[in-house]
Amino acid sequence: MVFDEEGAFDLNPDEVIKDRTHEGLLYRRKVPVAVLGATGNVGQRLISLLHNHPWFDVKHVCASERTQGSRFGDVVEWRQSKPLPKTIADLLVEAPEPNIAARVIFSALDSSVAGDIEEAFAKKGYVVISNARNHRMDPFVPLIVPEVNPDHLALIKKQPYPQGGCIVTNPNCVVIGLTTALRPLQLEFGIENLHVVSMQSISGAGFNGLPSLSILDNVIPFIEGEEEKLCLEPKKILGTTTDTGIKYLDFPISATCTRVPVTEGHLVAVSVKLKKKATIEEVRRAFEEFTPPIDELRLPSSPKKAIYFFEEKGSPQPKLHKDIDNGMAVCVGSLRPCPTSDYKFIVLSHNLVRGAAGGTILIGELMLAQGLIHW
Amino acid sequence: MVFDEEGAFDLNPDEVIKDRTHEGLLYRRKVPVAVLGATGNVGQRLISLLHNHPWFDVKHVCASERTQGSRFGDVVEWRQSKPLPKTIADLLVEAPEPNIAARVIFSALDSSVAGDIEEAFAKKGYVVISNARNHRMDPFVPLIVPEVNPDHLALIKKQPYPQGGCIVTNPNCVVIGLTTALRPLQLEFGIENLHVVSMQSISGAGFNGLPSLSILDNVIPFIEGEEEKLCLEPKKILGTTTDTGIKYLDFPISATCTRVPVTEGHLVAVSVKLKKKATIEEVRRAFEEFTPPIDELRLPSSPKKAIYFFEEKGSPQPKLHKDIDNGMAVCVGSLRPCPTSDYKFIVLSHNLVRGAAGGTILIGELMLAQGLIHW
Amino acid sequence: MVFDEEGAFDLNPDEVIKDRTHEGLLYRRKVPVAVLGATGNVGQRLISLLHNHPWFDVKHVCASERTQGSRFGDVVEWRQSKPLPKTIADLLVEAPEPNIAARVIFSALDSSVAGDIEEAFAKKGYVVISNARNHRMDPFVPLIVPEVNPDHLALIKKQPYPQGGCIVTNPNCVVIGLTTALRPLQLEFGIENLHVVSMQSISGAGFNGLPSLSILDNVIPFIEGEEEKLCLEPKKILGTTTDTGIKYLDFPISATCTRVPVTEGHLVAVSVKLKKKATIEEVRRAFEEFTPPIDELRLPSSPKKAIYFFEEKGSPQPKLHKDIDNGMAVCVGSLRPCPTSDYKFIVLSHNLVRGAAGGTILIGELMLAQGLIHW
Amino acid sequence: MVFDEEGAFDLNPDEVIKDRTHEGLLYRRKVPVAVLGATGNVGQRLISLLHNHPWFDVKHVCASERTQGSRFGDVVEWRQSKPLPKTIADLLVEAPEPNIAARVIFSALDSSVAGDIEEAFAKKGYVVISNARNHRMDPFVPLIVPEVNPDHLALIKKQPYPQGGCIVTNPNCVVIGLTTALRPLQLEFGIENLHVVSMQSISGAGFNGLPSLSILDNVIPFIEGEEEKLCLEPKKILGTTTDTGIKYLDFPISATCTRVPVTEGHLVAVSVKLKKKATIEEVRRAFEEFTPPIDELRLPSSPKKAIYFFEEKGSPQPKLHKDIDNGMAVCVGSLRPCPTSDYKFIVLSHNLVRGAAGGTILIGELMLAQGLIHW
Repeated sequence: MVFDEEGAFDLNPDEVIKDRTHEGLLYRRKVPVAVLGATGNVGQRLISLLHNHPWFDVKHVCASERTQGSRFGDVVEWRQSKPLPKTIADLLVEAPEPNIAARVIFSALDSSVAGDIEEAFAKKGYVVISNARNHRMDPFVPLIVPEVNPDHLALIKKQPYPQGGCIVTNPNCVVIGLTTALRPLQLEFGIENLHVVSMQSISGAGFNGLPSLSILDNVIPFIEGEEEKLCLEPKKILGTTTDTGIKYLDFPISATCTRVPVTEGHLVAVSVKLKKKATIEEVRRAFEEFTPPIDELRLPSSPKKAIYFFEEKGSPQPKLHKDIDNGMAVCVGSLRPCPTSDYKFIVLSHNLVRGAAGGTILIGELMLAQGLIHW
Repeated sequence: MVFDEEGAFDLNPDEVIKDRTHEGLLYRRKVPVAVLGATGNVGQRLISLLHNHPWFDVKHVCASERTQGSRFGDVVEWRQSKPLPKTIADLLVEAPEPNIAARVIFSALDSSVAGDIEEAFAKKGYVVISNARNHRMDPFVPLIVPEVNPDHLALIKKQPYPQGGCIVTNPNCVVIGLTTALRPLQLEFGIENLHVVSMQSISGAGFNGLPSLSILDNVIPFIEGEEEKLCLEPKKILGTTTDTGIKYLDFPISATCTRVPVTEGHLVAVSVKLKKKATIEEVRRAFEEFTPPIDELRLPSSPKKAIYFFEEKGSPQPKLHKDIDNGMAVCVGSLRPCPTSDYKFIVLSHNLVRGAAGGTILIGELMLAQGLIHW
Repeated sequence: MVFDEEGAFDLNPDEVIKDRTHEGLLYRRKVPVAVLGATGNVGQRLISLLHNHPWFDVKHVCASERTQGSRFGDVVEWRQSKPLPKTIADLLVEAPEPNIAARVIFSALDSSVAGDIEEAFAKKGYVVISNARNHRMDPFVPLIVPEVNPDHLALIKKQPYPQGGCIVTNPNCVVIGLTTALRPLQLEFGIENLHVVSMQSISGAGFNGLPSLSILDNVIPFIEGEEEKLCLEPKKILGTTTDTGIKYLDFPISATCTRVPVTEGHLVAVSVKLKKKATIEEVRRAFEEFTPPIDELRLPSSPKKAIYFFEEKGSPQPKLHKDIDNGMAVCVGSLRPCPTSDYKFIVLSHNLVRGAAGGTILIGELMLAQGLIHW
Repeated sequence: MVFDEEGAFDLNPDEVIKDRTHEGLLYRRKVPVAVLGATGNVGQRLISLLHNHPWFDVKHVCASERTQGSRFGDVVEWRQSKPLPKTIADLLVEAPEPNIAARVIFSALDSSVAGDIEEAFAKKGYVVISNARNHRMDPFVPLIVPEVNPDHLALIKKQPYPQGGCIVTNPNCVVIGLTTALRPLQLEFGIENLHVVSMQSISGAGFNGLPSLSILDNVIPFIEGEEEKLCLEPKKILGTTTDTGIKYLDFPISATCTRVPVTEGHLVAVSVKLKKKATIEEVRRAFEEFTPPIDELRLPSSPKKAIYFFEEKGSPQPKLHKDIDNGMAVCVGSLRPCPTSDYKFIVLSHNLVRGAAGGTILIGELMLAQGLIHW
């Protein structure tokens, strides 16, 4: 890891915690971070959400060869509703190589290249927090939803990288909302099996991922590789840490993934069979009263409530509810008994925020608060 | 029943069957029909599909008081892609009262008024074929998908109406495609339970049913009364006739109904548990080889194949496949094993054609071919 | 005017101006306001934008008879991305009658009822700021775009209402963005004639104004009464005050209004012929350097810049730019010479914010800052 | 030109005209044709429209290197509502080289390659009818709208190609509808100037031309190169043939092109200033009575009427009217006086049919009927 700001990394982390106010932790100095894949859909959102972040400071933007060496503002096709911050626009796009002065690497790289690049950074001692799928299922790479399995971060100690280097991954965009919604049910009643049908927004496919002619006035009942992730990642996230990695939670998952003409927000129709019988009132209460341990850390990107539960019929909906708590909340509603399992309900989460950029940042905040990022 | 064309109804039905050619049955004279609720979404489609129909001739259009007495072409807000036929445009809109010179009544009335009006027609000896939900679950009213349960038409003999009057109903728009897809599985393997999540198009809600602001760029996970129909109607349709009506097929159905921003075509994600274990190849073959008994009647509105089976990933889709065989086919695809039941697949059907107007007409054709309409 | 908070209206307006800081004016006490038509599209947006407003405090919500007497939160179908504030949810819906304890009446009433009700309020001494079209063209009723014609507010002195009562109107949603864009051209070069084609979003039609079946995958080249407003209102807004009211600016306007499947944001293709010839560079500079007099008042809802000028091709666009400066900015771009007039360009503004609720509030702020609201 | 069917090209064209019935011309033998760019949006539509064509027979499909040598059905991502004909599916994809046994080449090549390839075919004696823009403005290449300027076909005699080889071009998709609508006005009153704002559908951008994230819930006020075509092509089409090519009609055209989230159908808001003053009734009559000379040829793809004129407000609309006469009609409506010119109206045409594939085929039919294709 290269770093040229004087003394930047020789501080004791305890010492830099200046104050613990009602607003949460404050640090004496912001952590310099880099965004890999900065021109893409998730990369842009990372930059947008990290603007004026109290703990992180975007010092480097890295992207593909085509744009390297150019001023970021000149090559990015900026598509966020908030304007591109001038300080970021003026950065030069760099190659994603582990010789940049940053402590944390937020990776929004395409999975076609993410694997090797992220590993190269970790080997040089960088903390890599990745949105790509490449390392998600590696035995010692934690797959983190901060509200669900913050304890899995302990796994990084088993990673072979020097100087605190590590790779931590953010799950698939649907899986994050789904496992958050399942967590209180798992804790209270246990999960016997799970059936999900997703209606996913087009922004999940990236800027150019989906031709308009394919999806306008249409539903496409297939997303490449998506059902596999939905069937696998929850088992790791809801699993338990052991000496040899994560013991997966063993339960059948059936997933059908569809694409719908919606800009942002993934909606999932969930049916779940519980291990322990529960009344609908008990299930509702489990959702409403869910208070994940990280709530007490008051992380800057945490939603006010991890789960918003809706009583009203027809809720939640992408258009009305995806932006709650700046897009970081998970919305659950339409709870009803399910004749073929136990209960069915609808889960909604913002795929670009909660499911990608925001979730990745929240992992970084959690790691900083847990003292897992030394500088 | 009032009828003023000379001798129109005194023919022996056997006698009027002039010819049985390769093209199917031909009749000496077309059956005069009326369309109730003619200005609405389904009513217009009935008129459009009945134009130049070989057996039926639209002689009367009936609608609400507001339009009665006016020339149909002057009051209808015609929204079909084929132009309004001049002969129909010139008809005067009549009240839906049982004193019109028609033999068959195709009802597209709103359920708020359909119940009584349809009964009044039946009492006067008319054959009522209805798209409304009011009488669907009546013990002696058949709920017909011609490819699935044509034998249920025998039930009309138990109806209390004079002069061949009867009420026959067309099921819910999703249920028609769904039960057609299930029928070969029921016949070959038996159905243990069923889980469906529908993604339904906006035309299912009628012309003014759904404000654009509600659904553009959105998914609404609720349709009033729809899940109830999906959980109930298939049990009757797949049931068997007995002396006392229909013995429902007894199996659990879980249904989640959503509305998506698609103009036409309802897509359903189906998971099914079979009574008898089957390989995926056997299930595929059951779909592909399904040949309903009515195929040999070569009814004018019958699709060439009742079920089109798609091997390709991402199929079927509303935009690409809803119009196959003029919108009368049911499309099945994306067949895969289901970890929480046995198999899952996607079903698509055109909600306004196969699921409403076209299905209703097909029932009329079937009844005529079976000699259940005397004239 | 009824008012029961002690001493609320006996203050000298000069006295209540506590401070004039860099942040703009501050008042000792917030002005109590009522929202008429509170359950509708614009009414909800008014409430949302007035939440935590530094000068105004929503004390009353009035709506149609159906909802009067109910708790607002129980009867409103809230569709704003920000949650309904609890204090507003707990208000009881009142009849829109001039006996409520408010000083300013923000009216989002439907034009079918707005005319009489607004007049009744003015007669009782209330300041009515209306989004409805009914009084817009009344000789002594100012039609205000604060960046364009703040001086027209002087007109209210000629209104016949007692105790400072008056009616002030917010123009049509397209007209606001359009006249803002035209204002610098009028000032610098004069306007000879104007040709506009609008592409208007569905939210301009109200919640239930536009069935989804009409507009999904479609363009409708007609909006009832809209072209008339576009041809008339700019002439008043860009006109000059005289003793007898407003002398309209006399120039031909051609308007074609269309509806497109976009949720929010009206886009207008403008061609303009100038009185004085100008280079494209001079026109660009006129847009970029436009600084309306109200900028120095630093009103709470004012955009940072009245006009954002875009050099990039394909700009502005509803999806990317409608929310700039909280939806209060007017975006201008795609400036090119026009072979049939002088120049053509694209204007975009947020129809619900800049063009309705936000514009109405900004008028209120301007009136308060100008000392036209006494309390 | 290579041709291996015995005697296929040695017939006298007069001789092969077997019959001139009420249905139009019939030929003894179909003309073998090739489709270049067969896998694309327009290429697929050409194939779909040429299926069972009475005069033309698709014998060859040519496409890019990636697909050459494969069975067409295996490599095309077929997206037409009518199924891919089996005979075409079984063709092997060939290179677009002038050694194939076809007489007419329908080119739907991308403009990045069309120029040279089309010329190579013409040089070998093929009749090339192209949808690409490359040769449209060549002095001796006719740019044909059969209803508007069929006489321009005479130009091909000046082309330097042997054996009847020639290049004929189909105009831009918007220009075809536009010039058809303008033609009766030109003939009756003369055109002084023209102002158009287009709202173009996404299918005009090709399969992958427009990411869904760009256009869903949006309007993009720019289409690369489109305004230039709209300002230039009408002048050639409405021009007159001279010894040295086409004398362009000289009149100012202002064009603004926008993309809207509509699948098919380009809508244009037109304002026109006429040379000779006309009443609105005269203009209406000019549209309604327009009978292009080619009508008497009764070409297979000709619409029943070249222009459908709509009196109803809000007409025409893409969703309701694009498919009239199988998508080959041009719809005109919303005629009103224009305060800045003389009249304004709305023009709609189906961009893939009338504006591309169908128009190209109609040119071929016209050339065959005029004896310009010898075989």
